[in-house]
Amino acid sequence: MTGIARKAVAELVSTFLFVLSIIGAVNSGSPLTPLAIGLALTVLVYAAGHISGAHLNPAVSFGVLIRGGIGVADFIVYVVAQLIGAAAAALVSFALWPRADKAMKLEVGPAFLVEALFTLALVWIVLNVATAKDNDGNSFYGLAIGGVVFVGATAVGSISGGGFNPAVALGLSISGQFDWAYIWLYFVAPLVGAAVAAVLFRALNNDKAAA
Amino acid sequence: MTGIARKAVAELVSTFLFVLSIIGAVNSGSPLTPLAIGLALTVLVYAAGHISGAHLNPAVSFGVLIRGGIGVADFIVYVVAQLIGAAAAALVSFALWPRADKAMKLEVGPAFLVEALFTLALVWIVLNVATAKDNDGNSFYGLAIGGVVFVGATAVGSISGGGFNPAVALGLSISGQFDWAYIWLYFVAPLVGAAVAAVLFRALNNDKAAA
Amino acid sequence: MTGIARKAVAELVSTFLFVLSIIGAVNSGSPLTPLAIGLALTVLVYAAGHISGAHLNPAVSFGVLIRGGIGVADFIVYVVAQLIGAAAAALVSFALWPRADKAMKLEVGPAFLVEALFTLALVWIVLNVATAKDNDGNSFYGLAIGGVVFVGATAVGSISGGGFNPAVALGLSISGQFDWAYIWLYFVAPLVGAAVAAVLFRALNNDKAAA
Amino acid sequence: MTGIARKAVAELVSTFLFVLSIIGAVNSGSPLTPLAIGLALTVLVYAAGHISGAHLNPAVSFGVLIRGGIGVADFIVYVVAQLIGAAAAALVSFALWPRADKAMKLEVGPAFLVEALFTLALVWIVLNVATAKDNDGNSFYGLAIGGVVFVGATAVGSISGGGFNPAVALGLSISGQFDWAYIWLYFVAPLVGAAVAAVLFRALNNDKAAA
Repeated sequence: MTGIARKAVAELVSTFLFVLSIIGAVNSGSPLTPLAIGLALTVLVYAAGHISGAHLNPAVSFGVLIRGGIGVADFIVYVVAQLIGAAAAALVSFALWPRADKAMKLEVGPAFLVEALFTLALVWIVLNVATAKDNDGNSFYGLAIGGVVFVGATAVGSISGGGFNPAVALGLSISGQFDWAYIWLYFVAPLVGAAVAAVLFRALNNDKAAA
Repeated sequence: MTGIARKAVAELVSTFLFVLSIIGAVNSGSPLTPLAIGLALTVLVYAAGHISGAHLNPAVSFGVLIRGGIGVADFIVYVVAQLIGAAAAALVSFALWPRADKAMKLEVGPAFLVEALFTLALVWIVLNVATAKDNDGNSFYGLAIGGVVFVGATAVGSISGGGFNPAVALGLSISGQFDWAYIWLYFVAPLVGAAVAAVLFRALNNDKAAA
Repeated sequence: MTGIARKAVAELVSTFLFVLSIIGAVNSGSPLTPLAIGLALTVLVYAAGHISGAHLNPAVSFGVLIRGGIGVADFIVYVVAQLIGAAAAALVSFALWPRADKAMKLEVGPAFLVEALFTLALVWIVLNVATAKDNDGNSFYGLAIGGVVFVGATAVGSISGGGFNPAVALGLSISGQFDWAYIWLYFVAPLVGAAVAAVLFRALNNDKAAA
Repeated sequence: MTGIARKAVAELVSTFLFVLSIIGAVNSGSPLTPLAIGLALTVLVYAAGHISGAHLNPAVSFGVLIRGGIGVADFIVYVVAQLIGAAAAALVSFALWPRADKAMKLEVGPAFLVEALFTLALVWIVLNVATAKDNDGNSFYGLAIGGVVFVGATAVGSISGGGFNPAVALGLSISGQFDWAYIWLYFVAPLVGAAVAAVLFRALNNDKAAA
């Protein structure tokens, strides 16, 4: 397999495994749940980074699009693959755990703010560690990318549920961890944060960016 | 010592230390137990990776065999060394902890599914981070390989006990943490997951693989 | 954007995100709070290291100044940017969490000692992993720098609150986690520790230092 | 400063900071204590590795001696520096925490066995990740070395207290966490484990070792 098909399969499989891990970690009730979520992203990014860039997140793909790392056609393929992978994980999860029936209620203002801010942090980190020429060949990109999701899940999980990723939000809405009433927020706020991060990255790295 | 003997000793010693660490971590009752299990694999992979590839797991060796990284003769030696190391750890554990008498009962369908899925994730990650040419010389392979075991142990440990490794399952069946009634499941499901991962890896990396 | 402006923006944004993460992590009441604080620094250092060196801490900038890594003018810009970022994070936090009203009371002697000692450890580590020629091109600097903050927060957090950073102390004093009565201690003790670390670094690396 | 003096100071300062962190982490009563102890070693190894090799442990120095990495004179200097650093940390700890008065009682057989086995694991890992030519220039050595101490502290801490290091044992005996009655065990068992690890390393890497 080559080209965009290869990347789409990598995004779909990786997002499937990511969302299945999240649903399992949330169901475990373990005190290590946010760390398991962050490290799930870390390990999957390391595995698929060399194939597709390992976005696993429409907001990350949006940031990479604005930054100039992928084109519009690839962006659409990536997002579709991510959403399918996330939805499939949620469906498979019904074979393992009952559908959650106590999705948290959000206060929209603070939830929007933290989803935007921590997706900004996530995309800022992705663009710098995985696409800046200065950092070519580093071994820390997965730790940095998964690490910030752990930090966000710990710091603001009680405010927004800790999505920072529209594909994850789709999966968790299907599995019942998130309330469908807020699906717009989990899509819009991360995209706003990602856009700000990409603009900031371009402003600070304009003479160094590589497509 | 050279050649296959050197590799067999490295696999045996490393799997011994891995299984002993698992039995100790489970006996500790610590909330950090799944993290200790994952990091035990991480550190042992870093130590023996340059000697034997540090599989420490018949399912990983099976995935590497299908991927073309080792031959059948070496595969058999690796698996025998891993099983001996795991059994020896379980025997030594009786000098340290009493035999567990409350092995968890499994629901076979879900347990098979998660053992297969997370071994798929593990072998997918191993093949990409430790055998793909694109990732030559990276320093993250151990973190990625141990990390996914931590994620799986947290996410689905309550469904299957979190084996993902026939050698570990042998050791934990001897030590009493796993029930002998399910030993077939802990062997078959991981091998199925490993085979799917290896096929997927070959489909996505066919023009880049190195033996 | 180029030169010092680019660096100042990177320090301001990174310190903002760091302090917001700390306030959120403290408010979460999670057992993983100190780990989230340390990893927040880790991920932000990886993101901004190639832009500004990612100090995020006036004590670190002070140590780098003494070590000869930056000049006085840049030092002042860095510190102002860090303090603005930290203060902004504390102000934004009021939209998310109520102001804390139970700042811990310190015993001044032990608190001063541990703030000085663990900032010494932090700056010793920063200078060695991020500015020593021997360690050029490593991928572990962010893990080492964030890791020591996690260690300090765990080991002596109950004695001093675990600042090790005047900008963090400013932010947490505004947000109510730290008591304003001790703001002098959170500025002076870390600067003392940083100075000792820089002198020690120069003594042990004098023939190897690079400006 | 140059030569052996430079290395001795690095070992002394690093072991001081390591033992102070351990005493603080144990006093904290945090569920993250074993992780903080492991990561303390990780970060200090990254900081001083390029200066002295960052042994911070007479058993590690003994393993490096047998492996041929240092001579007898240096070995003695290293051990003295480590013991002074550890003792100094214990003395400073009395300014911060009361002397512990409930050192655990050990069952000598199992405690000796686990101290030997996990020091074997530690030294096996050190020799492979930090002294094998195959692993030149890696960025994972500190994570591997600190990680195994976290694993051992979790897996067998309730059996032996989790020393794996005569200098740490000296410090914790002074601070009251360890009982003086077992100081011989904390010296002898790790040295036995280190010797076995070094012999094993030489057997498996004999054509590759570098002094």
